[in-house]
Amino acid sequence: MLHILFLFSLLFSISNASVTEICVADLKGPLTPSGYTCKLASKVTAEDFVFSGLGKPGNTTNIIKAAVTPAFVAQFPGLNGLGISLARLDLAPAGVIPIHTHPGATEALFVTRGAITAGFITSANDVYIKRLRKGDSMVFPQGLLHFQVNSGKSHAMAIVSLNSPNPGLQILDYALFGNDFPSALVEQTTFLDDAQVKKLKGVLGGTG
Amino acid sequence: MLHILFLFSLLFSISNASVTEICVADLKGPLTPSGYTCKLASKVTAEDFVFSGLGKPGNTTNIIKAAVTPAFVAQFPGLNGLGISLARLDLAPAGVIPIHTHPGATEALFVTRGAITAGFITSANDVYIKRLRKGDSMVFPQGLLHFQVNSGKSHAMAIVSLNSPNPGLQILDYALFGNDFPSALVEQTTFLDDAQVKKLKGVLGGTG
Amino acid sequence: MLHILFLFSLLFSISNASVTEICVADLKGPLTPSGYTCKLASKVTAEDFVFSGLGKPGNTTNIIKAAVTPAFVAQFPGLNGLGISLARLDLAPAGVIPIHTHPGATEALFVTRGAITAGFITSANDVYIKRLRKGDSMVFPQGLLHFQVNSGKSHAMAIVSLNSPNPGLQILDYALFGNDFPSALVEQTTFLDDAQVKKLKGVLGGTG
Amino acid sequence: MLHILFLFSLLFSISNASVTEICVADLKGPLTPSGYTCKLASKVTAEDFVFSGLGKPGNTTNIIKAAVTPAFVAQFPGLNGLGISLARLDLAPAGVIPIHTHPGATEALFVTRGAITAGFITSANDVYIKRLRKGDSMVFPQGLLHFQVNSGKSHAMAIVSLNSPNPGLQILDYALFGNDFPSALVEQTTFLDDAQVKKLKGVLGGTG
Amino acid sequence: MLHILFLFSLLFSISNASVTEICVADLKGPLTPSGYTCKLASKVTAEDFVFSGLGKPGNTTNIIKAAVTPAFVAQFPGLNGLGISLARLDLAPAGVIPIHTHPGATEALFVTRGAITAGFITSANDVYIKRLRKGDSMVFPQGLLHFQVNSGKSHAMAIVSLNSPNPGLQILDYALFGNDFPSALVEQTTFLDDAQVKKLKGVLGGTG
Amino acid sequence: MLHILFLFSLLFSISNASVTEICVADLKGPLTPSGYTCKLASKVTAEDFVFSGLGKPGNTTNIIKAAVTPAFVAQFPGLNGLGISLARLDLAPAGVIPIHTHPGATEALFVTRGAITAGFITSANDVYIKRLRKGDSMVFPQGLLHFQVNSGKSHAMAIVSLNSPNPGLQILDYALFGNDFPSALVEQTTFLDDAQVKKLKGVLGGTG
Repeated sequence: MLHILFLFSLLFSISNASVTEICVADLKGPLTPSGYTCKLASKVTAEDFVFSGLGKPGNTTNIIKAAVTPAFVAQFPGLNGLGISLARLDLAPAGVIPIHTHPGATEALFVTRGAITAGFITSANDVYIKRLRKGDSMVFPQGLLHFQVNSGKSHAMAIVSLNSPNPGLQILDYALFGNDFPSALVEQTTFLDDAQVKKLKGVLGGTG
Repeated sequence: MLHILFLFSLLFSISNASVTEICVADLKGPLTPSGYTCKLASKVTAEDFVFSGLGKPGNTTNIIKAAVTPAFVAQFPGLNGLGISLARLDLAPAGVIPIHTHPGATEALFVTRGAITAGFITSANDVYIKRLRKGDSMVFPQGLLHFQVNSGKSHAMAIVSLNSPNPGLQILDYALFGNDFPSALVEQTTFLDDAQVKKLKGVLGGTG
Repeated sequence: MLHILFLFSLLFSISNASVTEICVADLKGPLTPSGYTCKLASKVTAEDFVFSGLGKPGNTTNIIKAAVTPAFVAQFPGLNGLGISLARLDLAPAGVIPIHTHPGATEALFVTRGAITAGFITSANDVYIKRLRKGDSMVFPQGLLHFQVNSGKSHAMAIVSLNSPNPGLQILDYALFGNDFPSALVEQTTFLDDAQVKKLKGVLGGTG
Repeated sequence: MLHILFLFSLLFSISNASVTEICVADLKGPLTPSGYTCKLASKVTAEDFVFSGLGKPGNTTNIIKAAVTPAFVAQFPGLNGLGISLARLDLAPAGVIPIHTHPGATEALFVTRGAITAGFITSANDVYIKRLRKGDSMVFPQGLLHFQVNSGKSHAMAIVSLNSPNPGLQILDYALFGNDFPSALVEQTTFLDDAQVKKLKGVLGGTG
Repeated sequence: MLHILFLFSLLFSISNASVTEICVADLKGPLTPSGYTCKLASKVTAEDFVFSGLGKPGNTTNIIKAAVTPAFVAQFPGLNGLGISLARLDLAPAGVIPIHTHPGATEALFVTRGAITAGFITSANDVYIKRLRKGDSMVFPQGLLHFQVNSGKSHAMAIVSLNSPNPGLQILDYALFGNDFPSALVEQTTFLDDAQVKKLKGVLGGTG
Repeated sequence: MLHILFLFSLLFSISNASVTEICVADLKGPLTPSGYTCKLASKVTAEDFVFSGLGKPGNTTNIIKAAVTPAFVAQFPGLNGLGISLARLDLAPAGVIPIHTHPGATEALFVTRGAITAGFITSANDVYIKRLRKGDSMVFPQGLLHFQVNSGKSHAMAIVSLNSPNPGLQILDYALFGNDFPSALVEQTTFLDDAQVKKLKGVLGGTG
């Protein structure tokens, strides 16, 4: 009996080598191109691989009548190094997730409630739009502009997954009108009218 | 006016170069290590990026009282080359998704209904188990043994995503007892008793 | 003497195994997620690895007073499978490369003539803008919105490289206003005014 | 003469930039998803790229009459970041390497002594088994269950390589019966009988 | 009983989706940047994953008194898409594997017989050389110049693995002197003397 | 108005998660297999993404009458984690960039001035050579031996890009003759004559 235990002790020490098989993010540690450094293995618990933040609807009492609740590595450190993340979309009636990209990830969406019209545009400038109902799935290829709008009469909800723990989220309106990007340059590089740019800068808090 | 159209025509021809940005699988074409060859761009429609098969519960009137409904590339050709897939888990009361691995993908799970106890085991032989409720998420790192069981009194459902269009699914019981893997070798390499192996081979239709 | 020739013949047959070391695109063959199938090795010549199309300035007699000349895999088949491509930017005085993304690649730019003001915006909504002169280089991380404008008085030119043979090019204006993306959805997902959308659709040939 | 030295000094400073070309693991430093941080370049020696631990047979005086001796990054720090590792298998007569997976790597095996029957099972539930003799090679695709047993009368030995410096090793018996995975859950997710589970937990030191 | 069979039939159809989990090369089919197209699944057998060609010593009765026997994808089609390959080195007394690179792979070597002095040179121009004995392992990072010489009195043998099914092999002497690379260009780009270049071109069959 | 600001504040906190979207190298921090650790986000400026060092010609008053000026991660920290780098080649009349490899990257070259004859050699021992003029581009696949020589009468210049922030540069002459690689081993593994090796060791400062 001792013999087999001996063997497996040996094998066990082998297995311990596999440290990056799991690498729960130490969010206070240094960041690297491949993600955060790993929390000490001895401090990892089952809680690190579980996230409850997608259980509650986001607050949709805002102008877009919608909310995105992320479960990316910054919220869910167990995803570090694992190539996947999640998010929850809530859309009140008439709610809109404005056109945006995820610079580093493809997105797959599953509608859990209501009806959502979603679409994306390719580099070849083809537009693919579909009205999705509860139970439908749709995929949005990496880096392409896409959107989701509530096309039903009731609250809509979807779960999305992205194939990166850190997919990024670049919302067009916010990128153009919600920062210090100078209006003159916005206008020059988008062909939008000055009045339009200033109006949206006003709404979204942009300066310049 | 013509001028700008001229410009954008030029740019448009550039954009058309990005053919593998989307590569809807031609499931009848040759397969390659990176996935299926692409359907002709001119035949791609919005339908290719949408899948409705996860909208209905799988049939759980079986011994495990559970079902897995996949949306992998073979079911959802629009996923080809995009590094992501989905599946739906249905677990009737007492239902079980038996212990299994996805050889080529990490899995993220979101509970949409009921309560599920899920867990995985690492190469370091640590066991991480949690009881998840509706709204909870859990991640299962690539290639590791994991399971899900209904730990509530009602039907449970989850949506899972995997970071491969073709993640594979290796169910332990089926791999050991549901094929022609000779009983003597199963016993020799698992230390299971002959009676146990033959009993399960009988149930699962294995031979040898 | 024959002995060493014998050896190297053997080694030579080994070397021939390395077929995907080079994989010049057969642009008429099937496409896969990893690129085009390879031209027969016996038909590959030095010409396949050379491209002359970046030698001449693009036509800038258009409204944006600029041109992008690509050397992506569709123009330069020798790049297939090699993870890199090039393009040439020409900007007449007041020329603009409108805001755009490359969904699948990071870009590095080198100014060969004139002065260019370039910038990009991150997911964290930071804006990084610099005025570049001849001899300056700038990098634009994968998938992020960026632009280049001539900020001098003479013709400007830059060579850009992208770390994909097929980087894609999604020009914001063209994606929003140059196709059949319905105006109502454009307005709903961008917050742009109806008049603005219709004006730019008119300029760029969009319908819907 | 000085001129050329000057040139090469310049080039030499370029070359020094290539720090991650080699990245010997600092096993006491932080771990990242891509591996360990690198030992200081000035302290790297030829010894870091050499490992002698596979030169001696592992101890096979145990119940499985076999041993696995790893040369993974934890034992052989020079492998860090290099995408490869090695291990030595020793099988006394009747020795068995129990069914297991490497969650993050494909394995290639070369028999250096004796006869070994080896096999693997795919997600499609096909079983591929072969009796290998000295000089034969076999490949086991990433993440799939596989095993090796001595099928000769003398000691058998094999060298295996894996395409990860940290491939992981998940031995089925140890994962199910050698830790605190509760017996009730093991039985529920494997369909094994309670007596069988408790017997093997007893042998392998499992609790719960 | 039928119930559980029903379930597993369903799961079985899922599993069949994982077609690129294994992708045995169809060496007569088209080649892609990710490797060869896959042999039909129905024609795959255990033989495809086994290779016997490394069992016999290569012929070392040549001037370098050495031989390389490859098990790359062209010889061992089961490796296609799997990220690994093997080769056997045989070195008679005074045998030499001349300085070479593998452009697309890192190499790990295990000495099975005799004594071998091996080394590599980095971009930082550091030289790492070690005399290896039977049982020693050494790693050669991707793309770097390296060599192996017999430093004992008897036949030496090693098994090497490379983390690509198609690693490439560029032998310096053969690249410089064994083809139609014009002598004038060889001399200009290597600083070797004309007599030296012509002498080696004569030995290795080079022209120009 | 507050409502929409509220929403975007929420989204902004999401976006901040995307920390490795940009990861400017902290060159004094630890190095990992995926690159340097990231500079604090709060200290990143537009300057980090711009490099001016390629604006001036390298010093070509040396024996090879040429110079390579790198913009790799060590010179241009903003490239860290981004998979691309640049360099400038200057070749005075009769200038030569000696035969070399980049162990970890493919190179694309664009001639900005003069005429350059460039070439590379494959593992299959094919030699691809072309005379390039201003405006021509050429690609050199990863890890293969290649060279550039001035084939015009005036100064020539090229911009090259490489698909790694840290591509490495292994110059054949420097690797063989510019370090402490023992002459006897150089001769044994290259078949070069002792006089030739010693002559070049003398020129390049090699010892041993």
